[in-house]
Amino acid sequence: MTEHPGAGAGEQSQHPGRNMSSEIAEQPAVFDGLLSDRSALTEVARRVAERAPRFVLLAARGSSDHAALYAKYLVEVLLQLPAGLVSPSTTTLYGAQPDLTDVLLVSVSQSGGSPDLLEVTENARRNGATTVAVTNNPDSALNKAAEMSVNIAAGPEHAVAATKTYSATLLTLYLLVDAIRGGEAEHARRLPELAERALEPTEQLDEAVRRYRFADRVLTTGRGYSSATAAEAALKLAETSYLSARAYSGADLLHGPVAAVDTETAVLALCSSGRGGTAMTEVLETVHERGADVCAIGSAAKAVPHSHAVELPDSAEEIAPVLEVLPVQRLALTLALERGEDPDRPRGLNKVTRTR
Amino acid sequence: MTEHPGAGAGEQSQHPGRNMSSEIAEQPAVFDGLLSDRSALTEVARRVAERAPRFVLLAARGSSDHAALYAKYLVEVLLQLPAGLVSPSTTTLYGAQPDLTDVLLVSVSQSGGSPDLLEVTENARRNGATTVAVTNNPDSALNKAAEMSVNIAAGPEHAVAATKTYSATLLTLYLLVDAIRGGEAEHARRLPELAERALEPTEQLDEAVRRYRFADRVLTTGRGYSSATAAEAALKLAETSYLSARAYSGADLLHGPVAAVDTETAVLALCSSGRGGTAMTEVLETVHERGADVCAIGSAAKAVPHSHAVELPDSAEEIAPVLEVLPVQRLALTLALERGEDPDRPRGLNKVTRTR
Repeated sequence: MTEHPGAGAGEQSQHPGRNMSSEIAEQPAVFDGLLSDRSALTEVARRVAERAPRFVLLAARGSSDHAALYAKYLVEVLLQLPAGLVSPSTTTLYGAQPDLTDVLLVSVSQSGGSPDLLEVTENARRNGATTVAVTNNPDSALNKAAEMSVNIAAGPEHAVAATKTYSATLLTLYLLVDAIRGGEAEHARRLPELAERALEPTEQLDEAVRRYRFADRVLTTGRGYSSATAAEAALKLAETSYLSARAYSGADLLHGPVAAVDTETAVLALCSSGRGGTAMTEVLETVHERGADVCAIGSAAKAVPHSHAVELPDSAEEIAPVLEVLPVQRLALTLALERGEDPDRPRGLNKVTRTR
Repeated sequence: MTEHPGAGAGEQSQHPGRNMSSEIAEQPAVFDGLLSDRSALTEVARRVAERAPRFVLLAARGSSDHAALYAKYLVEVLLQLPAGLVSPSTTTLYGAQPDLTDVLLVSVSQSGGSPDLLEVTENARRNGATTVAVTNNPDSALNKAAEMSVNIAAGPEHAVAATKTYSATLLTLYLLVDAIRGGEAEHARRLPELAERALEPTEQLDEAVRRYRFADRVLTTGRGYSSATAAEAALKLAETSYLSARAYSGADLLHGPVAAVDTETAVLALCSSGRGGTAMTEVLETVHERGADVCAIGSAAKAVPHSHAVELPDSAEEIAPVLEVLPVQRLALTLALERGEDPDRPRGLNKVTRTR
């Protein structure tokens, strides 16, 4: 490719979406790396298990907040501990100083640079919590603030829309929770291979792009572990294609928002084999009856009412979100390109957002 | 009014929105009733305080889930306890049986009839939690399942869109939390009078209706206590006017979704006096710069960047959500009527949704 001297970021604009596209493709290798070297993570898990926390808090913003939601399910189901997502503003705006003895706080941030998470973590540590930072940057301020830390080891992220760092965060959180209960990552072993297969070119994905090229109103939905993927899908579509996408848990969707579902609505539904996917059947019957177009994504996509299905290889339900997000990322990327946008240069986005 | 015999629900359709409208108007009286008779609530608070819970979980669906989010802030800031919102599916789908000793579970449901909340509450009680049901029906299954219960005393709700039961739930949760810490409802005393004033006809609200008559893409946003109002506003607009509305906490909005904000976006921003409202300034400067139309609602509406302001009487910040939701309800009602919809008969909604 010819360089365009003086064009600044001009080279990049010659290849819209190049960063996002190459980082999507890196994911099987990132998973392989995480699975191959688990010694540091296992040591953190051992120390956490020793403390026998009774309650788990998860702190995050943006995409990482969806990873935290996934971890909340893992903690509640696999560790059998009550858990909550932190609202950082109770610390940063209102100065809450709760007693956090017996509490494990997991702070999740790709950059490790969000000032609000830093404040939440420092504050929790002072108040007695066991603190673990999960970041992509071992030198980050958040790593220093937390007592322990775990590296998602996704390599440098150049794309503005998080892809490999999101899935690497999911997998890291799974491995951490699994190791805390003494697991050996059994369900995750085949992930690199399954991710390779999930990223192969497929007519089902191409058709989804054609089909939703002009979609304007998109709802995303999932239940159980997959509700995190639904939240991430809505954010990814909003930040790359500027779609008006919003996420509902399958259960909440039937509580009111279903009134806004009509023939002009595209419903992107995450349906993986297992109890969450099975529970989607009732939800999708309802929206399907209302004339909505249902794009089902996941290993159980063809087992639920759907207008179009994007299938994925089968996996244990608790690890399925790591795979489910792959076609979602590709859909967001390709839709953005088809709509004439460059997902590597979204309007008005910075990588580290300095909210307090 | 002449009756139309044989028209079934025909009488109602002669007066679209009548139920919703009259229930909105009842709110000052409902608040007055709740404030006048606090003996049962105070007794529940005393028993809860005696147990000295160390963690608080909140379980709810739909509008009540937004009330639960408000309560989460109250618990974290006023009780200085860590808190989390329950994902019912970890119980109902995945059968989690965590040890809930020292945990207070507050289950919030207008009808007290949601089967999933019932299962969560029974399960939590069996696993050692102190359980409190907050409902509008003292005879409900949820009241029986919980060890203690508190009545929101909003009277029968005929409208499909929750209005008085939402605000009554907020106030009840405030009174409960305040009583647990030994408070005497000091900040809530003037609420009935302030609510009367907030419900007076106002040119600011009329102009908001004209202004957003054709709005298609709406974001709602708030920080701190007011993030609950933002969530409720998005739901109310979606279920009555079928607007594609979605809510973001002010902090999360800057983390990605801001890319989808442009000159065609209406941003409904909750801004009450206090730390949450003040923290909205930065958020609204950003969306305002991007050309979005900002409708600021609250006692600090004119103190932030705005295109249009709907002001409210001043109150303590922690009680402001009870007032903030009043103009939001009126906006949802009037927009629905202007758009030719009957908010009392939304498409395909039932009052009790039986998800599991």
